[in-house]
Parts: sequence; C-alpha cells; structure tokens
Amino acid sequence: MGLREWIIPQDKAFFDVLEKESANVVEAAKELEETVKNFDAINERRKRMKDLEHRGDEIVHEIYERINRSFITPIDREDITKLASLYDDVLDFMYAVVNRLVLYEIKSPTVPMVKFAEIVRSSVENIHQAFLFMRKLDKKEIDVKCIEVDRLENEADSLLNESVAELFKEKDIVTILKLKEIYEYLETVTDKCEDVSFVLRDVIIKYT
Amino acid sequence: MGLREWIIPQDKAFFDVLEKESANVVEAAKELEETVKNFDAINERRKRMKDLEHRGDEIVHEIYERINRSFITPIDREDITKLASLYDDVLDFMYAVVNRLVLYEIKSPTVPMVKFAEIVRSSVENIHQAFLFMRKLDKKEIDVKCIEVDRLENEADSLLNESVAELFKEKDIVTILKLKEIYEYLETVTDKCEDVSFVLRDVIIKYT
Amino acid sequence: MGLREWIIPQDKAFFDVLEKESANVVEAAKELEETVKNFDAINERRKRMKDLEHRGDEIVHEIYERINRSFITPIDREDITKLASLYDDVLDFMYAVVNRLVLYEIKSPTVPMVKFAEIVRSSVENIHQAFLFMRKLDKKEIDVKCIEVDRLENEADSLLNESVAELFKEKDIVTILKLKEIYEYLETVTDKCEDVSFVLRDVIIKYT
Repeated sequence: MGLREWIIPQDKAFFDVLEKESANVVEAAKELEETVKNFDAINERRKRMKDLEHRGDEIVHEIYERINRSFITPIDREDITKLASLYDDVLDFMYAVVNRLVLYEIKSPTVPMVKFAEIVRSSVENIHQAFLFMRKLDKKEIDVKCIEVDRLENEADSLLNESVAELFKEKDIVTILKLKEIYEYLETVTDKCEDVSFVLRDVIIKYT
Repeated sequence: MGLREWIIPQDKAFFDVLEKESANVVEAAKELEETVKNFDAINERRKRMKDLEHRGDEIVHEIYERINRSFITPIDREDITKLASLYDDVLDFMYAVVNRLVLYEIKSPTVPMVKFAEIVRSSVENIHQAFLFMRKLDKKEIDVKCIEVDRLENEADSLLNESVAELFKEKDIVTILKLKEIYEYLETVTDKCEDVSFVLRDVIIKYT
Repeated sequence: MGLREWIIPQDKAFFDVLEKESANVVEAAKELEETVKNFDAINERRKRMKDLEHRGDEIVHEIYERINRSFITPIDREDITKLASLYDDVLDFMYAVVNRLVLYEIKSPTVPMVKFAEIVRSSVENIHQAFLFMRKLDKKEIDVKCIEVDRLENEADSLLNESVAELFKEKDIVTILKLKEIYEYLETVTDKCEDVSFVLRDVIIKYT
C-alpha cells in the first residue's frame, strides 16, 4: 500500500479541520480587503474580524484536542501544530491591523493600505489552494502556489520600504507613526503566510 | 519506582538552581514596580537592576556548567536550558525598561507604566509559584498558575494597544516615541513570562 | 580513524561553499563600512550591495542543492542550513541598511553609523576566522573568536541605547525616526553574527 492510499483514509479529519482553519483565514483576508477599500462601519467590521479570530482560536483548539486523542496522524504532529499556530498568527496580525484602524482613529484608507490588503488576500488564497493540493499530495501544484506566496512576500516587502520612505515626507508625525505601524503589521501577515508555505513544502518533501 | 520517586532525589540541585533564578527574577520585578511607583534614586535603582541582571547571568552560567558535568538530569537538558534562557530574557527586558527610564531622562511615572509593572510583578510571581509546584509534579496547580500568566499577557497586550492609542493624542512627539518603546518592552516581559509558562506546561505533560 | 580524519576528506565541498558564503559576507561588510565612511556614489554602492546579497542567495541555493544530493555531510544537515540561513540574514540586514540610506535620502553619515559599521565589519571578520578554524576543528581558537563576536554584540547594543537616547535630543523628528531605524538594523546585524557564533560553538562541541 503506497503512502497515498495510506494517508488519505487514515485520518482525513485532520485535513478537514486544517482546511476549515485555512478557509476561515481566507474569509478574514476578504473582510480585511473590504474594510480598507470601503472604510465604512469600521466598528462592526472590527467586531466581525474579532469573531473570525475567535473562530480561528476554536479551530486551533479543536486541532490540539484531536491530536491528543489520536495515536496516528497523517502528517507529523509537530507539522500539524506548526501549521495551525502559523495560520493563527496570520489571523492575529490581520485582526491587529483592523483593531489599529479603530484605535488610532484612521479616517480614510491610503493607497498602500489597499495594495497591501490585495497582496494579503492573494497570498492567503494561494496558501489555501496549496493546502487543498495537500490531500492529493500534488507536489508540483503546491510548489507553484508556494512560489507565488514567496513572490507576494517580496512584493509586500518592497511596498513597505517604499511606503515608509514616502510616509517620511508627510507633515504630520503622528500620522507617520500610526501608518508605519499598520503597514508593518500588514507586511508581517505576508511573512507569516510565507512561513506557512515553508511548512507545506517541508511536509510534501517528507511524504512524497 | 515511579517517576515521582525517581525525579526528586536524583538531581534536585537543578531545581534548586532554577528556583534561585526564578526567585531572582521575582526580586527584580518587585524592584521594577517600586522604581516606577516611587521614581526616586533612579540611578541607584538602575544600578540595583543591573546587579540583579548580572546575578541572573551567573545563575544561568551555573546551570550550563552543571548540565555539562551531569549525565542525568531530572528533566530534559533542552528544557532546562530553555527555561534558564527565557528567565534570562525576562530579566534583560526588565533591565532594559529601567535603563531607558534613565537614558531617556523620563521625569515621572505614567499611569500605564505603573499598571504594566503590577502586571509584570504578578506574572513573575505566578511563574515562580508554578515553578515551585514542579517539584511536586502537581499538574493541576501548575495549570492554574500558567493560565493566570496567559491572562496577564492578554491584559498587558490590551493595555499596550490602548496606552499607545492614548499616547498618540500627546503633543510632544519625542515623549510619544520614548514611552511607546518603554511600554513595548514592558509588554514583552509578559510575552517572555508566557513563553516560560509554555515550557513548564510542556515539561509537566512529559513527566506525569 | 578519528573524526578529524573522517570529517575533512569526506565532503569538504561543504566547507568550501560555506567559506565562500562567509567570504561574501566579509566583502559586504567592507562595502558597508566604506559606504558610511565615504558616502559617495550611494546608488552605485546600493547596487553593489544588492549584487552581493544576490550572490549570497545563489550560494545558499547551492548549499541546499548539495544537501539534497548528499547522503553524508561532515556536519549535521540542520547545522549547515542554519549557518547558511543565518549568514543570509546578516547579509539581508546589511543590504537593508544601505537601501534605507538611499530610500530615506540620508545626506551624510553620522558618528554612530560609522562606529556601527566598524563593529559589524570586525564581527563578520571574527566569524569568518572562526569558520576557517572549523576545518581544523580547533575548538580553542573558535572560542576566542566567538567570545569576541559576543563582546562586539554587547558593544553594539550599548551603542544603540546611547545613540537613540542622543537622537531623542534632535529637533527634526523625521530624522530621529529614520536614523533610529537604521541604527536598529545595524545592531541587528551584530545579533545575527552572534547567532552564527552560537551555531559554530554548538557544532564544535558536538564534533570534538
């Protein structure tokens, strides 16, 4: 019996629940994008992000519970908990962005904010697609998606450097400080996505 | 012979020395709290914090020395060095706070500073109590203390977000920059305490 | 056959390629020092740093390729990849400094900038020398070099604290923000050098 036959029926519940977490992160990224594009009902949107973050915590909890009950898992315990906790970081930093929009009383979106949100959404969607290919152990397609996640992280990094340099030409220093921090958080989301992609690639190398 | 009987007499010196480190950290947290509450003799207090930090370094050195001489340790080598080095981080960040009070010529305490120092002291005391329950391998009591450490970390995190948002309403930008950095260091102390609590929980799961 | 005889002929290509990476980092540190000392042709210098960083990436890629092809390596796979990736961080942060000189339109060097660049160059050279002693498994000489790297990291840390405290007395806030970030990046280079030195010491303890 090949690994492929063994891995799929064994405990597909792990894929189900990680997929649920991944889908939750995609939903949050869309909410984030809409938030910075529409900039309306910001308190309601923060509340909604908080709920998505909370739901993420519950899914992570479910994953840990399941691991403690399981003797056998399709992929290493450590890989599963790493994925779960990195996904959780992605979500936490997305919430931190929306939370700061409220806390720092940001009144309108900026061009970099919208660009970042688009990069984040695209990054999270690529991660989700890579994750779906995990079930099929399709190394080639996972590689394609993960390379795109890396490219997006580089794009976010350049965007951060240029946006901060641009910010420094602003007159209002407090605005510089607030936006710089928000941009840094947005860039960190793409770093965390890249970390997820590294784990996915490690896993696929181990199991194929 | 159960693990309990084996673990305690075997090399209780490790508990003794880790306990000494933990007690040193508690002393530093009390010094930090008194510093931000009294705000007197700040140079002497910085000197005293430096001494406590130095003493912490010596204890860590003693732990490493002892590990190199030992063939058997009650808990994993790696867990001991992780604990020792995380405790050291807690101490370093506490010193960094007091050092910045002097370097940045802060003239009076702020409300968040005092609140942070209380959270830090409480967090460090809970860690110390959890550590004392390690000797008895009392999983339940350790859990209670560690959950409190997590709660305090969340409290510090919210305090940071709100205090920084409040700071941004200040007029003097340099004051914003100085206090923001000091608050971030204070919040990092509670992050490091949470990291200690994670290791304690891992250890207790392994050995009970 | 002792370890010494075994380790050297086995796959000395790994030492060759890590040495190439290390030498590339030394070259970048010299370029960095000249950049902040001369402050001329800054765009050409950034381009040159980018090339060195790019060459670093290629060397890291070569190391990974070689590891995937090898069944036996002289030192642990994980140690090699850790070294390669930490060296890469050293280089990335050096590039980040020069990149910010251009992006933030810094017009002249500052005293701390020059001091930092000297510390960085010295740190990187000590690392390189420690690395050369790896081939001979000369624990004593490696220790001497690594202790110097630690000392330089402490020096950079104090320099950062004092320079930032000094910066806060500046009038122009945007200058404070720009230089603070550049100083922090310079200090991070020495942190990463210290991380390299930790791995070198771990490796030499394992293999002697």
